[in-house]
Amino acid sequence: MAEATAHLDRLTKPPGSLGGLESLAVQLAGITGVSPPPVPTSPAVAVFAGDHGVLAEGVSPWPQEVTGQMVANFCAGGAAINVLARQVGARVVVVDVGVASAVPDSPSLIRARVADGTNNLLHGPAMTPAQCAQALDVGGMVASQLVGEGCDCLITGDMGIGNTTPSAAVIAALTGRAAAAVTGRGTGIDDERLRRKVDVIEHALARLGLAGEAADREIDAQTVLAEVGGFEIAALAGFVLGGAAAGVPVIIDGVIACAGLLVAARIEPKVLPYVIAGHRSVEPGASAVLEDLGLTPLLDLSLRLGEGTGACLAFPIVQAAARVLNEMATFDSAGVTEK
Amino acid sequence: MAEATAHLDRLTKPPGSLGGLESLAVQLAGITGVSPPPVPTSPAVAVFAGDHGVLAEGVSPWPQEVTGQMVANFCAGGAAINVLARQVGARVVVVDVGVASAVPDSPSLIRARVADGTNNLLHGPAMTPAQCAQALDVGGMVASQLVGEGCDCLITGDMGIGNTTPSAAVIAALTGRAAAAVTGRGTGIDDERLRRKVDVIEHALARLGLAGEAADREIDAQTVLAEVGGFEIAALAGFVLGGAAAGVPVIIDGVIACAGLLVAARIEPKVLPYVIAGHRSVEPGASAVLEDLGLTPLLDLSLRLGEGTGACLAFPIVQAAARVLNEMATFDSAGVTEK
Repeated sequence: MAEATAHLDRLTKPPGSLGGLESLAVQLAGITGVSPPPVPTSPAVAVFAGDHGVLAEGVSPWPQEVTGQMVANFCAGGAAINVLARQVGARVVVVDVGVASAVPDSPSLIRARVADGTNNLLHGPAMTPAQCAQALDVGGMVASQLVGEGCDCLITGDMGIGNTTPSAAVIAALTGRAAAAVTGRGTGIDDERLRRKVDVIEHALARLGLAGEAADREIDAQTVLAEVGGFEIAALAGFVLGGAAAGVPVIIDGVIACAGLLVAARIEPKVLPYVIAGHRSVEPGASAVLEDLGLTPLLDLSLRLGEGTGACLAFPIVQAAARVLNEMATFDSAGVTEK
Repeated sequence: MAEATAHLDRLTKPPGSLGGLESLAVQLAGITGVSPPPVPTSPAVAVFAGDHGVLAEGVSPWPQEVTGQMVANFCAGGAAINVLARQVGARVVVVDVGVASAVPDSPSLIRARVADGTNNLLHGPAMTPAQCAQALDVGGMVASQLVGEGCDCLITGDMGIGNTTPSAAVIAALTGRAAAAVTGRGTGIDDERLRRKVDVIEHALARLGLAGEAADREIDAQTVLAEVGGFEIAALAGFVLGGAAAGVPVIIDGVIACAGLLVAARIEPKVLPYVIAGHRSVEPGASAVLEDLGLTPLLDLSLRLGEGTGACLAFPIVQAAARVLNEMATFDSAGVTEK
C-alpha cells in the first residue's frame, strides 16, 4: 500500500487529484498484496434469495411468491442485475438459501435452501442457531467456490420480499440505533405500512431486551442474525467473510448487504479492508452501517432496488482505480515538469 | 420521454427503485427521440488545451510549459484521461485551441490555436471578441465533426495550467456569487496562493463593474467569456452548443467544463436537456454551476484533475441507464406478480 501511495504521486497529475480513485487504488494494492494491483476482470455477483415469515405482518405490499418468480427472472437473464452484470462482464449466480416457493432448474442456480423461508421474527427467532450457521456457511462456500473458479471480485446481491424489515432489525440491534432511524420504505411503502414496519421491529427488539432503556444490553452478532435476520442476510455475511478470507475485494450493495456486512464485521473486523461500499442506498439503515464502519460509498444514485445493482454499477470504478496505477505515465517517463 | 417513463414502470422492479438511472434513461429517450434509446457505444472525449496570461500573477505553482507537455502526454496515451477512456472505449481527441508552447504532431491532435495563450485577465480582456468567437467556433466544429464521424456521446475534457482562475472568474461573473465562494485550490495551492487567486479574480470582476455593490450590473455571457475566460473554456462552451445542436448527450466534467457549460446555457438555454453532469468536482465553482442550472451529478468522488476524467468515469452509468430500458424484462414477459 505504501508503494502504491508513492507511485500515485509520481503519476502525471497533481498529488491526490484523483480523490476517491486514489484511496481505492491503494486499498486494492493492500487486498492483492502487489503494486500495481491487477485490474479485476472476472467479477461475479451472487444473488442470495430468501423469504421471510414477518411478511405476514403486512410489512410489504408485494406477495411472497414474487421472490421465487424473481429467482426465475434472474436465471432467465431479465432482471436489472442481469442487465447491469452483462454490461460489466460479471457472472451472475443465484443462490436459493431460503425461498418459500418452488424455483426452476437453471445452470446459474445454486440450490442451498436451509428452509422454506424464515419464521416470523415478531413472535420468536427467525431461524434456529443451526439454520443460521448453515446459511452463513452457504455464503462462505459460494464465495470460496467463485474465487476458486477464477473470480477476482465479488459483488453482493439479494432478493427476498420483505427483507428490508429483518435488515433494519439487525442494523438497529447491532448499532444501538432506534428502529425508526434505520427503517425505510423498502420498495416504496406508504406512511401507514411504514409505521407498522417500525412497530414490528421495535417489538422484535423488545423481545431481545434491546428496545428503549434496555438497549445497552450486549448481544452477539450471530444471535441477532438468528433472532431477527434472514437466510439471505446470513448468507451475505458468510459471503463477505469468505471473500475476505479468499483475499478478493467484495463490493457491498444496499441495505440488505449492509446488514450482512455489519454481522460479518462484528464476527471478524478484519473483513473491512477487503470491503468496498458500492453505493449509498436510499434506505437509512444502509447509511447507518456505512457510517458506523467508516465506509465511503462510490455511488449515490438514489437506488433502492437491491439485487446487487448499485454494487455492480460501481465495479467499473474499481477497475478504473487499478488501471490508473497500472497504465498512467509518470512525470519522468512522460517528460512533464513538476511544480 | 413519456413512453420511456411508462415503460420503466412495467419493468420487473418496484417503480422508481432505480433512482437516478431512471431519470437518466428518460433523458436519453428525450435526447435521441426514441424509446428505448439506443445504448451509446461510441463516446469521444475532446480535451481542449489552452494557456493563460493570468499565470503571471502566481495563481498556480505549475509552470506554463506543463500544458504543452501534457498535450504530448495525451497524444502518447499516458495521462489519466487516456487510461479512463480506454476502459470505456472512448476515443480521445486533443485540441490545441490556445497553448503557448510548441506541441508535437499526432494523429489525435487537432491544431486550432487561436493565439499562444490568453492575455492577463487582471489587466484587460483575456481575448478579443473575435478571438473568443473563433474559440467558440472551434468547440462547435469539433463537436459536429465527432458526431459526423459516428460518435454518439460527447465527453468534455480540458487542460491548461492556471485554468481554474478564469473558470472561477466566469462563474462568479455569471452567477453573481462572490469570488471567494467559487474559487478553489485547483491543483492544490496553499492558503497564501488561494488569497492571491481570489484577489486577482475580484480585481478582474471590478474591472468589469461586477464586484461588490455594483454586482447587479447585467453583462452578457460572451462578453464575460472574452474578458475573463480562456480559449479552452470558450471552446468547451462551443462544444456543448455543438453537441446539443447535433442531438447527442454531452457529459460535463469538472469546474472548467462547468464554466463552459454556464456560458453555453446563457447563450442558448435549450442546451440543458442534452447535458449530463458527470461528477461533482471538489472545486466550489463546479457546485455553484450545477446548483444554478439544476443539475445532479452522477458521481461525487472528490476528483479535481480535470481532463474529462470525472465525465469519462460516469459514461458507463449513462450506458447502464439506456441498457435498463432496452434489456430488462417486464412483469408480463417474466410472469412476475405485481403488488
